[in-house]
Amino acid sequence: MHSELIDTLIVKNQSKIIFLIMDGLGGLPAMGRDETELEVAYTPNLDALAKKSVCGLLDPVGYGITPGSGPAHFALFGYDPVKNNIGRGILEGAGIDFPMMEKDLLVRINFATVDREGRVIDRRAGRIDNETNQRICRKLQQQVRLKEGVEIIFRSVKEHRALLVLRGDALREEIAETDPQKTGVMPVPPHALIPEAEPTAVLFSEIVGQAGRVLADEAKANMILLRGYARYRKYPSLAVRFGLNALAIASYPMYRGISRLLGMDIAPQTDSIKAEIDILREKFADYDFFFVHVKPTDSRGEDGNYDAKVRVIEEVDTLIPMITELRPDVLVITGDHSTPAALAGHSWHPVPVLLAAATCRPDSVTRFGERACIQGGLGRMPMVYLMGQALAHAKRLEKFGA
Amino acid sequence: MHSELIDTLIVKNQSKIIFLIMDGLGGLPAMGRDETELEVAYTPNLDALAKKSVCGLLDPVGYGITPGSGPAHFALFGYDPVKNNIGRGILEGAGIDFPMMEKDLLVRINFATVDREGRVIDRRAGRIDNETNQRICRKLQQQVRLKEGVEIIFRSVKEHRALLVLRGDALREEIAETDPQKTGVMPVPPHALIPEAEPTAVLFSEIVGQAGRVLADEAKANMILLRGYARYRKYPSLAVRFGLNALAIASYPMYRGISRLLGMDIAPQTDSIKAEIDILREKFADYDFFFVHVKPTDSRGEDGNYDAKVRVIEEVDTLIPMITELRPDVLVITGDHSTPAALAGHSWHPVPVLLAAATCRPDSVTRFGERACIQGGLGRMPMVYLMGQALAHAKRLEKFGA
Repeated sequence: MHSELIDTLIVKNQSKIIFLIMDGLGGLPAMGRDETELEVAYTPNLDALAKKSVCGLLDPVGYGITPGSGPAHFALFGYDPVKNNIGRGILEGAGIDFPMMEKDLLVRINFATVDREGRVIDRRAGRIDNETNQRICRKLQQQVRLKEGVEIIFRSVKEHRALLVLRGDALREEIAETDPQKTGVMPVPPHALIPEAEPTAVLFSEIVGQAGRVLADEAKANMILLRGYARYRKYPSLAVRFGLNALAIASYPMYRGISRLLGMDIAPQTDSIKAEIDILREKFADYDFFFVHVKPTDSRGEDGNYDAKVRVIEEVDTLIPMITELRPDVLVITGDHSTPAALAGHSWHPVPVLLAAATCRPDSVTRFGERACIQGGLGRMPMVYLMGQALAHAKRLEKFGA
Repeated sequence: MHSELIDTLIVKNQSKIIFLIMDGLGGLPAMGRDETELEVAYTPNLDALAKKSVCGLLDPVGYGITPGSGPAHFALFGYDPVKNNIGRGILEGAGIDFPMMEKDLLVRINFATVDREGRVIDRRAGRIDNETNQRICRKLQQQVRLKEGVEIIFRSVKEHRALLVLRGDALREEIAETDPQKTGVMPVPPHALIPEAEPTAVLFSEIVGQAGRVLADEAKANMILLRGYARYRKYPSLAVRFGLNALAIASYPMYRGISRLLGMDIAPQTDSIKAEIDILREKFADYDFFFVHVKPTDSRGEDGNYDAKVRVIEEVDTLIPMITELRPDVLVITGDHSTPAALAGHSWHPVPVLLAAATCRPDSVTRFGERACIQGGLGRMPMVYLMGQALAHAKRLEKFGA
């Protein structure tokens, strides 16, 4: 089955669809318990919803594949995550609303600390503060110079992260990442991975050399590491593909960036999950589709903090009535992937999902949790087909064939 | 999802993966019982494993498709069974370690008995013994002659089976199989299925004619039937695709042949399941991946002998502690396909699977059997993705995308 088949069946109506995405929702047992974070959490509202909805498990990219956030969100929104695999440079650029152009080559910078011999001793430069980051980016912008014909742009992102953009003709993205992925060793030179990338590699060598000299006096951020080289490309929007006028409510730059790439409007940043739901309620009349992104489930999973992840899930549960009161036609609650605290990172395990709509066929699931969802009516399905399910229950897909 | 995506994500480590394959494991009720062979078998060790592992059902090729052993094993090892569909001739050649070359066209011979008018009366020539088989092959090799430029090679395999190899330019495999699949009728002429195969078909007509004359005096094996015409091609190995240093422990020629085609080392032949497990234990330090092939489950299924198949499964169960004591990082137990005694042959029913690893998410399965596995956390999945699951749990796949 092709994930683009639904594009040919779109009809518009007044229905409202909400995707409440708890990032990294799926988990594993830990702390001597036999239950996952979601299973152990006290979630009366989610359980009540699970009872009336259809549940299942989603594979973001495929069996056994641990997805990055980019591919996982592309799959959530119905975009084939393999065909549309997107470089981190573009995600960073989109996250800070950088006005990308067709020729741009975008690269993620991690500021790092190197010792006198050039060995990396901190791959994140002690997570410098945002002001230092901005000051350093200005310095680099003023002092790093390239040959004529290639424009170079440095943009601060957050903490140790920044964006580097080269704007010029015939730039290639097949360049080695320079982050050595461990400390005590030299950065990898940004060498060409294919012969055609050689001229671009020369530019990056020049940039890395100059940046090292410009930053030599910095206490922590005295080197740049380059990752995720990506040429900009344009994606068809949710409006074009599905006729959805979409609002993204997300506070973390990467998710705002992905949403912007897919043509969604972006709500102002907030500092709590509750504040995100408040925006959902304020803007509910103005859009067809709402992407509400909850980051802390993933963050606490990445921290390896099982109990803290449980508490985030319980906090979300208390906010569910604020969402259901809106009476959306379709409410989907899931994650973009699993981030079990037991693994302190993303994993390949499928993600529990519930879809609530008036047209749900009952299944036997009575609580929202991984092992309960195995018995759900959605079964185990590729995440890329979730959008089609949502559109169907929103009556936004017409019949295929005569 | 593409079954080759995992190839791009491979990382190496010290983990050990065991695939214990009970050939034809999946079954059906028979003998007035409501349970399958696996369900009725007394399997305390497998049941204990199922409790701690994640279970499911595998479709070797696709819904409703009854697979041959070649495609089923390709799927087990993560090779698309349709794209890589392999002729039986190549399987036979690989099974006897025949040194194949790029131009070779390999064909499986079944010795058969025909009556005076040429009608097939026994499609397996009474399963002649191996010495007779070898004597007949020598006779054919000495007396069958082709036009210049095409070399012809006969090799004995086992019982009624032999291998025929044509070595020459522009040979085609699109030739009709001559086995009529029933007795009382003439063999099918080896006619060309497409016009381009006409010159090759002429060669096979010549061979069949000469062989009939050479074998005219034989008591049982007085004709050859040709099946599975296949031109040799090279496959990427498990080492190249997945970075796995693999050992195959299999006694039956075809499975040794498939393993060799995929670059595995091949353990010496043994005469019991216990002896195979002994080899596994001896060689456990030397490899990353172990394919342990148990043939009698399939053989007893093919015989239509429900009780005997149950006994083979029970024998394997008693050997499970010898495997789990090794503490493999990932232990997969499944079959390559179903061979229900009720059908006395391969079938299209999905095969029960369990995967045991420290990173398994609990499901509700507490015993190893077909209907229990329907409730398992793996769900019903295409077999070709099993290898990705195993590699993921062995921590041998890195994250996809940023």
